Amino acid sequence: MMQRETLCNTLAHHDGSPLYVADPAPELGRRVEVFARTADTLGVTRVHVRTSPDGEPHFTEALIDRKAEGETWWRASIEMVNPECGYRFLLHTARGPLWLTAAGLSRIEVTDAADFTLAAYPPPPAWAADAVIYQIFPDRFARGCPEAQVLPDWARPAEWEEPIPYGRPEALQQIYGGDLWGVADRLGHITDLGANLIYLTPFFPARSNHRYDASTFDRVDPLLGGDEALKALVDRAHDQGVRVIGDITLNHSGDAHDWFVEARAEEGSVERDFYYFEGDDYATFAGVKSLPKFDHRAPELRRRLDAVIARYPAEFGLDGWRVDVAQSAGRHGDVELNGQVARETRAALGEEHLLLAEHQFDASAALRGDGWHGTMSYAGFARPVWSWLARERSDEFWGTPGPIPQYGGQDVAQVMRSYASRIPWRSYTHSLTLLDSHDTARFRSVAGRDHQHLGAALLFTMPGLPMVFAGDEVGVEGVHLEDGRRPFPWDGAWDQETYRIYRELAALRGSREALRRGGLRWLHADDDVVLFERAVPGEALVVQVSRAGHAPVLAPCELAGLLGAPDLNAGEPIPADGPAFHIWEVVR
Amino acid sequence: MMQRETLCNTLAHHDGSPLYVADPAPELGRRVEVFARTADTLGVTRVHVRTSPDGEPHFTEALIDRKAEGETWWRASIEMVNPECGYRFLLHTARGPLWLTAAGLSRIEVTDAADFTLAAYPPPPAWAADAVIYQIFPDRFARGCPEAQVLPDWARPAEWEEPIPYGRPEALQQIYGGDLWGVADRLGHITDLGANLIYLTPFFPARSNHRYDASTFDRVDPLLGGDEALKALVDRAHDQGVRVIGDITLNHSGDAHDWFVEARAEEGSVERDFYYFEGDDYATFAGVKSLPKFDHRAPELRRRLDAVIARYPAEFGLDGWRVDVAQSAGRHGDVELNGQVARETRAALGEEHLLLAEHQFDASAALRGDGWHGTMSYAGFARPVWSWLARERSDEFWGTPGPIPQYGGQDVAQVMRSYASRIPWRSYTHSLTLLDSHDTARFRSVAGRDHQHLGAALLFTMPGLPMVFAGDEVGVEGVHLEDGRRPFPWDGAWDQETYRIYRELAALRGSREALRRGGLRWLHADDDVVLFERAVPGEALVVQVSRAGHAPVLAPCELAGLLGAPDLNAGEPIPADGPAFHIWEVVR
Repeated sequence: MMQRETLCNTLAHHDGSPLYVADPAPELGRRVEVFARTADTLGVTRVHVRTSPDGEPHFTEALIDRKAEGETWWRASIEMVNPECGYRFLLHTARGPLWLTAAGLSRIEVTDAADFTLAAYPPPPAWAADAVIYQIFPDRFARGCPEAQVLPDWARPAEWEEPIPYGRPEALQQIYGGDLWGVADRLGHITDLGANLIYLTPFFPARSNHRYDASTFDRVDPLLGGDEALKALVDRAHDQGVRVIGDITLNHSGDAHDWFVEARAEEGSVERDFYYFEGDDYATFAGVKSLPKFDHRAPELRRRLDAVIARYPAEFGLDGWRVDVAQSAGRHGDVELNGQVARETRAALGEEHLLLAEHQFDASAALRGDGWHGTMSYAGFARPVWSWLARERSDEFWGTPGPIPQYGGQDVAQVMRSYASRIPWRSYTHSLTLLDSHDTARFRSVAGRDHQHLGAALLFTMPGLPMVFAGDEVGVEGVHLEDGRRPFPWDGAWDQETYRIYRELAALRGSREALRRGGLRWLHADDDVVLFERAVPGEALVVQVSRAGHAPVLAPCELAGLLGAPDLNAGEPIPADGPAFHIWEVVR
Repeated sequence: MMQRETLCNTLAHHDGSPLYVADPAPELGRRVEVFARTADTLGVTRVHVRTSPDGEPHFTEALIDRKAEGETWWRASIEMVNPECGYRFLLHTARGPLWLTAAGLSRIEVTDAADFTLAAYPPPPAWAADAVIYQIFPDRFARGCPEAQVLPDWARPAEWEEPIPYGRPEALQQIYGGDLWGVADRLGHITDLGANLIYLTPFFPARSNHRYDASTFDRVDPLLGGDEALKALVDRAHDQGVRVIGDITLNHSGDAHDWFVEARAEEGSVERDFYYFEGDDYATFAGVKSLPKFDHRAPELRRRLDAVIARYPAEFGLDGWRVDVAQSAGRHGDVELNGQVARETRAALGEEHLLLAEHQFDASAALRGDGWHGTMSYAGFARPVWSWLARERSDEFWGTPGPIPQYGGQDVAQVMRSYASRIPWRSYTHSLTLLDSHDTARFRSVAGRDHQHLGAALLFTMPGLPMVFAGDEVGVEGVHLEDGRRPFPWDGAWDQETYRIYRELAALRGSREALRRGGLRWLHADDDVVLFERAVPGEALVVQVSRAGHAPVLAPCELAGLLGAPDLNAGEPIPADGPAFHIWEVVR
């Protein structure tokens, strides 16, 4: 019974959103009021909040702030004694104590892993929470000035419509000729979609079309239009209210990188210390010899990387970075500098820019301290969504052996909540949510057209910074990560229904504070349906996503339909068909 | 269904014990074979082990090592790429993937928090796993040479039989006159019990009878017999195969401490930097002005504390330390040196001595890295046992508001497994398990006589280093932490049945490798009964503890009774009465 009840957040709830936390960015030493709500049916007689100032557990009794609609709101005050303050609620009932953490309610004692966390570090830039991200793999988005391109020896020219020879070595050598001028020319498409932040995969010169094997960080690849094109793109984007972030690998460089060439040539060079050499051999990323691993113990390497991180925002107006392979950066054998790399990179970037990190698995350990603002939510978002909505149970599941698992909606809610519970709310809401990327098959090819629309509904209505991989919005397919990097079909047939749905969802997100900054309460989850609420003071939305027809669920209150959903009175059954999604505003 | 099944470890299991890990103390760079067992009824077709070398997830396929008795044993090899290597198993079945972590089996993806962990740091001293600890509060155990005592101004003499005025300030000023000579005189009692490690609460001079407010670390309190008595005690104990550890506060000193007196007197003194002064005011532990908090940023403080840590083992033969208030040491505001304090203290102590830390709540974060060997298992052992066995639902529950919660046996198993799952096996098995201490009421007064015996059965048969608070073994009572510090009843009436049970359990532990170094598999847990297995290669024991009569449970295999338990054939019902405990050896 409790198991079932506690999957949902209707008996008791707290999260880091403005309804429950008075100051999301408190300074060290300040006090913050926090609120928890409990359903009166739970029979809560008293509430304590447990904090751990300087590591020592401490209980403070909460006061009743107000009672409304069958619920009691409890208020307590937390002192920001340390830069990260964990806290949880202890609810006293006649049937015994209940612990409320970000993992939900528990009758038995739970470890501190899912304690709520407030951080006194500087917050992410204020604009970040409004971001709708558009991911561009520059070679594949749009040709701007390809006649200027002189192909290097490793590259092979490809026609825009040519299939990608995925799974074969030449897949990384095909140059389709997209460039940053092309991106600048197509800004209108991006703003029409409702995106306002472009995330460019690497623009540094390299020896592959993905460019994660940089040969220098000193300039933009001339194949992409060089420094001039990046400057023009960022300027024009900013004019249209669109920001731009880059992509950098702090874990390794390419073996053609200036620094590595020097290091290999000169044992006495300062660059020699930038890598892990053992004689002529050297450490690599994942055993790939063309990706020599950085040794972050070298102060001069740290200085140069920090300079790169700072220079592109300063000189080009870049609005931040996505950091590739962040889970390994600074980590090698008994060298453990991963946290330090994150903190120093953030310090070099400054507080006005966004710093996101790639993490394909559990990123919680990397989201402590004053480092990455957020990570890519593969584990906490994309993987559970695939597991619920995939039709093709292929083996393309982020390198995890075996087919994509088969989840019910309750599993999706459980996994999402579990991963979210282990990171501060601020990191959770500033992590990048995605259905797919340049590193995966296209979600549409895995889930099918109908289910792609359900995924999009989750993407745009859940916490996080939603990212669209360019082409998703018009129905581009791809059954493999390289196949998914198909050139944008400017002249091809767009799925206009998909395109409409993406634009409507992005516009709704843009117009609704509750979707961008609201709390998240799971209201119902069963095999084929999930129902959740997003709310800020004064605005609450309810979202239903159903994979198939399901047992009726009753409207928890009066609901006004959005995007064509029917108006409902409290207690009326919500639509039980599927695949479908519906969004409502709560009528006060 | 899965929920119920996975509470037990009979479908699939792995832990850090010798049955499953070939080398518990591997060096960096070495390979370690690990084994997982799966019940053939689970239908596992393939197994992978997931590691994360340098932070990057990596899957290796396991091979079938052997099949026996309806189970398959899978073998894989893990390379110790980093000092701490997390790993988990992925079991492929026709019904989908299952993840096996230290938290059990999961059909859905789980965070890395409960991954198994192997550490390449130097292991705890080899003798530690055999320890049975006897905790002595020196003023209350035995008088040796009290005529030599000259009481300081703060102290009040008390007769041995005088009740403790608990809850009143004078409770900390009563001196009953026990000393280290007295301990040395009573070593026979300790060895008769079957204990082999004495843990002395602080022996430094102070201004209270608990001495956690040290006024110097330079000498043993003359009230306790001074340096001479400690030397004599350790020498005599070693002669009898008994080790001795001390107790030191690295979080704070007393306000009468030499260093604090100097710091307060001289703003320019080197000791001034040992504390957090703001004008005349200073930071304290938990707001207690007599306990000024150390500032571990001061290199000279670190040097002096390390010297104390090293000196007593070197000069007195002390076998290690228990560190008081370890959860706060080195932690104040934005100063976060807790992990560094642990690592440096361990380095100062050396690898032949034992280093345990006080943690009354979740200690998992403190058991990463090369710091404490283990902590006091309040959260992972004492609290769930109290919650199952307490008869008096008093409010004396480690400062947690409200009465002691009411658990069923399944809750005990769940909480114990959850806390254990978050720390390396080595730290789990080298943590100190306890029913009570000088910091709690006596377990007997909370649980009653019968239930004390059940608690003792758990204490001596579960993983961890069992600790007996002197007096528990003969039935000493105490309804409050100060009340529990009653003088040992040398002339009083002992509960001979309790004493017999403690001695039998300690002797059984001493004679059975499986109890000291074995793995732990939960076999069954319900409201009133828990059943678990402890096993090493060649020896397996099954332990049943029942709080009350319960539904019959069948013997999983042929069992030979120990300590009076009946022999049983496979499938025969085990005794279903209660309160009771039974222990069997598995017949091969």
